[in-house]
Amino acid sequence: MKPLETCTIGIVGLGLMGGAIALALRSQGIIGTTGHILAYDRNHETLAAAQAEGIIDAGIRSPASMLGHCDLVFLCLTPTTLLRFMESQMAAFQPGTLITDIAGIKGSIVAAMEHTLREDLDFIPGHPMAGSELGGFVHAKHCTFHGKNYILTPLKRNKPENLALLKTLIYRMGFGRITETSPQEHDRKIAFTSQLCHVIAAALVDCEDDTEITRFGGGSFEDLTRIAMLNAPMWTELFIENQEELVQRIEQFEGSLDRLKSYIAHRAGPELEQRLQRVRERRAAMV
Amino acid sequence: MKPLETCTIGIVGLGLMGGAIALALRSQGIIGTTGHILAYDRNHETLAAAQAEGIIDAGIRSPASMLGHCDLVFLCLTPTTLLRFMESQMAAFQPGTLITDIAGIKGSIVAAMEHTLREDLDFIPGHPMAGSELGGFVHAKHCTFHGKNYILTPLKRNKPENLALLKTLIYRMGFGRITETSPQEHDRKIAFTSQLCHVIAAALVDCEDDTEITRFGGGSFEDLTRIAMLNAPMWTELFIENQEELVQRIEQFEGSLDRLKSYIAHRAGPELEQRLQRVRERRAAMV
Repeated sequence: MKPLETCTIGIVGLGLMGGAIALALRSQGIIGTTGHILAYDRNHETLAAAQAEGIIDAGIRSPASMLGHCDLVFLCLTPTTLLRFMESQMAAFQPGTLITDIAGIKGSIVAAMEHTLREDLDFIPGHPMAGSELGGFVHAKHCTFHGKNYILTPLKRNKPENLALLKTLIYRMGFGRITETSPQEHDRKIAFTSQLCHVIAAALVDCEDDTEITRFGGGSFEDLTRIAMLNAPMWTELFIENQEELVQRIEQFEGSLDRLKSYIAHRAGPELEQRLQRVRERRAAMV
Repeated sequence: MKPLETCTIGIVGLGLMGGAIALALRSQGIIGTTGHILAYDRNHETLAAAQAEGIIDAGIRSPASMLGHCDLVFLCLTPTTLLRFMESQMAAFQPGTLITDIAGIKGSIVAAMEHTLREDLDFIPGHPMAGSELGGFVHAKHCTFHGKNYILTPLKRNKPENLALLKTLIYRMGFGRITETSPQEHDRKIAFTSQLCHVIAAALVDCEDDTEITRFGGGSFEDLTRIAMLNAPMWTELFIENQEELVQRIEQFEGSLDRLKSYIAHRAGPELEQRLQRVRERRAAMV
């Protein structure tokens, strides 16, 4: 692989995350004057805007003509769009291209890619733990990477130098911590930290139809339901793709909720207080 | 009632909220040089610190000797401590004193006060919807009132001029919106916006014992569980005091969660997406 500064990086899908990655690459000076940031999106207005703002060097309207020039490609698509894109565009990549993705699910993507990926391409699955309840390229500037987590689920066949380069790139974009794990472990953990939280936020809004309820809000309700402003098609896809892990996590949560409810219903003060104290200590230990 | 600037205001309990109220009264210049801010707390070091920092004019070690000088008293105590305090100190208040509280539960307090309050005292129950997961006077400066909600559940016997004065005071402390309602309605709404949210946050931390899970966090888990750092004795009291409303709210939430779980378990994509879309629209309508 060439030095990072001289690479041509292609971004497939210039939405919130694709846009935020382009912005980070540009604003952190990661890609120098001898390198390029290209992007493909089905929305040509977005490409034109990003190019006019200088965030990308060129918006390319045909994926095939972009992929032939890229050393590194970020696939910023939902899981099913990603798999369809790879199926139809596999022949267009330059030999040796380093490919990574940002999808919130890893098991099914890795399984599919292991069957279909060309031998001469190197795919390193990734998941930047950043985002915003406001989607799309126009909100990309509100999606900050500073100090955030990034998960990688490297494959055995990944070239060590490519993995090293991608990790350097991730830190230079501003992320604070990279965790390497298996796709299965990723999906198990994410079912809890991300998907379960979105299901809970959705359920909380779902069970109250008085929109004036926020007059009684003091921050807790607002914090818990900010992510209820979710991109419904994308999250439907993520929830169903990770159905098994997620249902198990929902049931674990229901178990804990039921226990607390039972203490409250039976006015079991000492037991409730002890449990809440344990929760407080555990949360304090989570850093 | 005298003009606000010349009032002597007494704060009973100089914890997070009592401290934040004292700070707001002082920093907003609400109490002028002819008025006073006094405080009573069982922790004498806190009183000394607050006096040394100029946040209060004097820390009084005996509630009775403070109450005899106050025109307006903020009871910044937990519900049971408040009721015990009022029982033991009822004789100490100046005739005509305006008394208000900050407790997160109103029905049981109003019921008790209606029986025990002296005829010549005016008690206006209140609930500032502000706080912090970090408790105590030392964190009072992190408890901001700016633009926050404040709930009042006035009694029929309250003097209109006292209610008007309290509302002026609340807005001048920085709160953005006052809602007047009945104690029952307060408890019903708060069971949802505040207590249910705290129960959910606690259950979420309760069901995962891996404290390293935050490596997989992208903001959602952190947002949903910040309030799991709860003051266990206080919240135990609030949950059990509002047991009936809270259990009902938990069960409503469980119903919504179960429906979403069922869609996910049965991979019912269109139904799930439609429900999430409805949630998104409802959350957007909540301002």
